[in-house]
Amino acid sequence: MLSLDRNAATPLADQIELRLRELIATGQLPAAARLLSIRQLAAQLQVSPNTVVTAYDRLVALGLIESRGTAGYFVSESARHPAMPDAAVLEAGEEQEAVWLVQQSGDQRAGVLLASGGALPPAWLEDGVPAAAVQRGLARASAGMASRCPPQGLPELRERIAMVLRGIGIAVDAGRILTTYGGTHAIDLICRAFLQPGDSVLVEDPGYFLMFDRLRKDGIRIIPVKRHPDGIDLNELEAACVAHRPRLLFIQTVVHNPTGWGSSAANLHKVLVLAQQHGLLIAEDDVQGHFHPGHATRLASLSGLDRVIYYSSFCKSLSPALRMGYIAAEPALLKALMREKIYSVLTGSALQEYVLLEVLAAGRWRKHHDRLNAKLLAARHASARQLVGAGITLDHPGEGGLFLWGKVAPEVDLPLLVQDAYRNKILLVSGATFSASQAFASHIRFNVAFSQQTRLSDYLRTRLASLAGAQQALLRAGSAQSKLP
Amino acid sequence: MLSLDRNAATPLADQIELRLRELIATGQLPAAARLLSIRQLAAQLQVSPNTVVTAYDRLVALGLIESRGTAGYFVSESARHPAMPDAAVLEAGEEQEAVWLVQQSGDQRAGVLLASGGALPPAWLEDGVPAAAVQRGLARASAGMASRCPPQGLPELRERIAMVLRGIGIAVDAGRILTTYGGTHAIDLICRAFLQPGDSVLVEDPGYFLMFDRLRKDGIRIIPVKRHPDGIDLNELEAACVAHRPRLLFIQTVVHNPTGWGSSAANLHKVLVLAQQHGLLIAEDDVQGHFHPGHATRLASLSGLDRVIYYSSFCKSLSPALRMGYIAAEPALLKALMREKIYSVLTGSALQEYVLLEVLAAGRWRKHHDRLNAKLLAARHASARQLVGAGITLDHPGEGGLFLWGKVAPEVDLPLLVQDAYRNKILLVSGATFSASQAFASHIRFNVAFSQQTRLSDYLRTRLASLAGAQQALLRAGSAQSKLP
Repeated sequence: MLSLDRNAATPLADQIELRLRELIATGQLPAAARLLSIRQLAAQLQVSPNTVVTAYDRLVALGLIESRGTAGYFVSESARHPAMPDAAVLEAGEEQEAVWLVQQSGDQRAGVLLASGGALPPAWLEDGVPAAAVQRGLARASAGMASRCPPQGLPELRERIAMVLRGIGIAVDAGRILTTYGGTHAIDLICRAFLQPGDSVLVEDPGYFLMFDRLRKDGIRIIPVKRHPDGIDLNELEAACVAHRPRLLFIQTVVHNPTGWGSSAANLHKVLVLAQQHGLLIAEDDVQGHFHPGHATRLASLSGLDRVIYYSSFCKSLSPALRMGYIAAEPALLKALMREKIYSVLTGSALQEYVLLEVLAAGRWRKHHDRLNAKLLAARHASARQLVGAGITLDHPGEGGLFLWGKVAPEVDLPLLVQDAYRNKILLVSGATFSASQAFASHIRFNVAFSQQTRLSDYLRTRLASLAGAQQALLRAGSAQSKLP
Repeated sequence: MLSLDRNAATPLADQIELRLRELIATGQLPAAARLLSIRQLAAQLQVSPNTVVTAYDRLVALGLIESRGTAGYFVSESARHPAMPDAAVLEAGEEQEAVWLVQQSGDQRAGVLLASGGALPPAWLEDGVPAAAVQRGLARASAGMASRCPPQGLPELRERIAMVLRGIGIAVDAGRILTTYGGTHAIDLICRAFLQPGDSVLVEDPGYFLMFDRLRKDGIRIIPVKRHPDGIDLNELEAACVAHRPRLLFIQTVVHNPTGWGSSAANLHKVLVLAQQHGLLIAEDDVQGHFHPGHATRLASLSGLDRVIYYSSFCKSLSPALRMGYIAAEPALLKALMREKIYSVLTGSALQEYVLLEVLAAGRWRKHHDRLNAKLLAARHASARQLVGAGITLDHPGEGGLFLWGKVAPEVDLPLLVQDAYRNKILLVSGATFSASQAFASHIRFNVAFSQQTRLSDYLRTRLASLAGAQQALLRAGSAQSKLP
C-alpha cells in the first residue's frame, strides 16, 4: 500500500509517516488494525529499519498508532474519525447567514465553485510567499521563540509596513503602526476602542456584511450611505451627519468590496471636509487596496491621518495562512487601539511577524502583486464578458480587484436562484447580504477569479432563461428536487 | 566594522546583512552615510562580490540603504530611528495600570528584574520548541500557505489537542475543540458569546487582573468570591448565587494565578452541584495547568464538560512567540464561541497551527514540561526560602507553578514600596492589582523563576527593615529621590 519517491526532497521517513497518516485518516487502515512490523516494512520498501522506526515513533507521538510490545504496532482506537460533529457543521438554512458565509466562502472543498467567494484561488497565491523568505523568517523567529512579541508589533516589521504605506503616499513611521491578526481584527479593535452601544455609525451601502452584523450585535445604529462608482454619496453623507450625529464612518475608498468601485480625489476631499465639520472619525478600510492596479488617492494620504484610522492586511493578496493585518493612526488613537488588542488577544505572534518581515524584506512581493493584478484584470474582462453573455447586467465595471457587481432582472427570484445554485455546487451570494438597507435584492457579487468559468455562465444562462417571464412558477414548484436541467 | 563567523550555520550573506542592520539600527551607520563599495567590502571580508550583492540587495529591499547609481550605496533617510514615539511608550504613572502591566511584565529589557512578572525567562523555554519540529510544521504550512485555516482550527491539530486533554482526564474529541490566539483570546470569546452589559459574573479573589478590567469595561458586574488554598469559598459562592443570580463563574482550579493554590476534588464537586442548582455556566481557566507537577482533578473532567467551558494555552509553557490557545466545550456552546471568533479575527493562522501540530507530534514537549516543572519546584523552594528570609510572609506554599503569594507587614506602605522598587529596576506588583474587592493591599505576587535572586531578597530585606516601625515617615519624605541606600 506504500510507495516512496526516492527523488523527492521529502525525507523517506516523512513520506512513510504522511502516507500512513492518510491511510489512517481515510479509514483504509481502520482502528485496531495491525501494521507491518518494522523489519517487514523496511524490507518491503527497501529502506533502513531506522527509517521506519522514525516514522512509527512520530505516529505514536501523534497518538495515531500504539505499540503493544512484542505483538507489534496497531492503529489506535482514538485515531478513528471523531464521532462528534465539528462545530463547523452547519444546520440546514444557515449557509446564507453572514457569519457562516465567511466560512463557506473560504471553504475550498472539491467541486464547489466559489463564484461569490471572497478569496483568491490558492493557486494564484502560490508564488506570494517565497519558501526561502519563510525560512529566513523562521530562523529569526526561532531565536526569539521564547520571547513574547511586543503588543504593538515587532519594531522592524512596523518600520517595514510604514515603508509600504509611504510607498502609496501615506506619511507614517513605525510609531504609528499597530499589527493585527488581519483586517477583521482591525475592525474589531476600532469598534471596541471607539464605539458604545447606541452610537450611530455610517457605513457604505453596499459594504462588508460581516461588519454590519458585528456592529448590530453590539447595539450600534447603522446608518447606510449610498455608494457610487466614484465614491460615497456626499449629499446623503452630509444629511446623515446632520440627522444622526454619527461617531464614525467606515469606508472603503479603493477597489470597494463588493463593487470594485473607486473614489475620486475630489470626493475624498469633500468627505474629509464633512468629517471636520461634524466631528466625525473615519475608519478607512484598505484590505482590498493591494489589488489596485495603479496609483490611487486615499483618505489616509489626503488627511495625513488627521481623524482617519487606516487599516489593511496581507491576508487577501499574500497569504491567508499568515493572518497579518495592520492599523495606522495617530499615537493617541493608536494607544487606545493597542489597549483593546491587549484586552482581546494580549499580543501578536512573533512567529508570524518575523515570517512576514522576511517575506516583505525579500522584496518579491511587489512583483507578485503586479503579476496578480495583471491576472485579475484579464480575469475581470473575461468574467464580465461571460456574465453579460449569460444575462447579467453590470452597473459599472469598477477599477479592479476581486469583485464585479452584477444584477439580474427584477422579476427573478434571487433567493431561489441562490438556493438552486448551491444545490448545484455554485456559491452565489445575493446583493442583499451586502446591504445595510435591505437593498440590492437583484444584485450578485461575482469573484472574477472564478466567474470566467463556463460552468457558471452556462448555469446562469440556462437558469435565467428558464426563470424569465411566466416560467418562474414552474421552477418554484419543482425547486425542491431541481438540478441543472 | 564587520567580522564574519565562517563556522556558523548562518550563510555569510545573512551575517553581513544582519550586522549592517545592527549598525544602522544603532546609528553607528547614520542616515546618508556611504557604505563601502561591493568590491571593497568583498575584498575586506574575503568573500565573493556576489555575497555582498545579495546582502546589499536585501537591505535595499528593506529600505535601509539605497543605491545612487555610480555614487554607490547610502544609508536611507527613512532608515533613521522614527521621530514619533511608539504607542508602547507609557506616560508617568501608567506603569501600574493593569493593561500596561501586561506589557511591562513581558518586557525583558536589560536590567529589569521581573520579580512579579507573568512569564518564564526565555532561557527556560529554549528547548520547548525543537527547531526540527518547527521545520516540519513549516514544510506542511508552506503547502497550505495559500489556503485559509478553517475557523474552528485545523482538524488534525484539534485532534492532537483533544488527545492532550484526554491525557489529563478530560473526555473530548476534535469536534469539541476551538483554537484561539492564546488564553486571553479565549476569555474574550467567552465574554462576547455569553455575557451582556449588566450581567453578574463571579470571579475568584484574588484572580487574573486583566480579565477584571476587561469585564468592567463591558459593563459586567463583578462579584468577588474568596479563594482558599484548597479551592473557592463554597459558602460565599452559594450566597453569591442566591443574591446575584450570576450568569457565569470564571475559575482557575489548578495552580491558581496569583497564589499557586489548587482545589480539592470535593470542593470542585460542590462547585458543580451549586452550578447545577443555580443555572450557572462555568469558564474553567487552565492556562497555568501545564505547570501542575502531577495529577489534578479539574471541573472539565468531573463534569464531562456539562456547563463547563474549559480553556488553556501553550503560550506560557511552550512558546510565547506561538500565540496558540484552545477552548473545549459542548458543540452548542462551541458554535457560539466560533461565531465570535469569526467576528473578532475571522480565523486562525494556518502557519501557527501547522507549527504547533508538529511540535506536539514530535512528542518532546512532555519531557520539556517535566523538566520545566522540576526546575520550577526547585525555584519555588529557593524563592520561598529567600523571600521568608527577607521578611516576606507566605500564606500557603501552594501546589506549584510560577507564583508565590507573599505578604508584607500591614504597616508597610506597599504602593510606595512598589514605586521605589520600580525605580530600582525591580518589577513588583501589589496584591491589590489582583483583587476584585480592593483587598490584598499587603500582598505581592512573586514569580519563582526570578525571585530566588539575591538582588531581590537583598533589596526587600533592606527596604522592609527601613520601613519597619517609625522609619516609614522618613522614607516617605525622601522617596522622590530615593535609591537603594
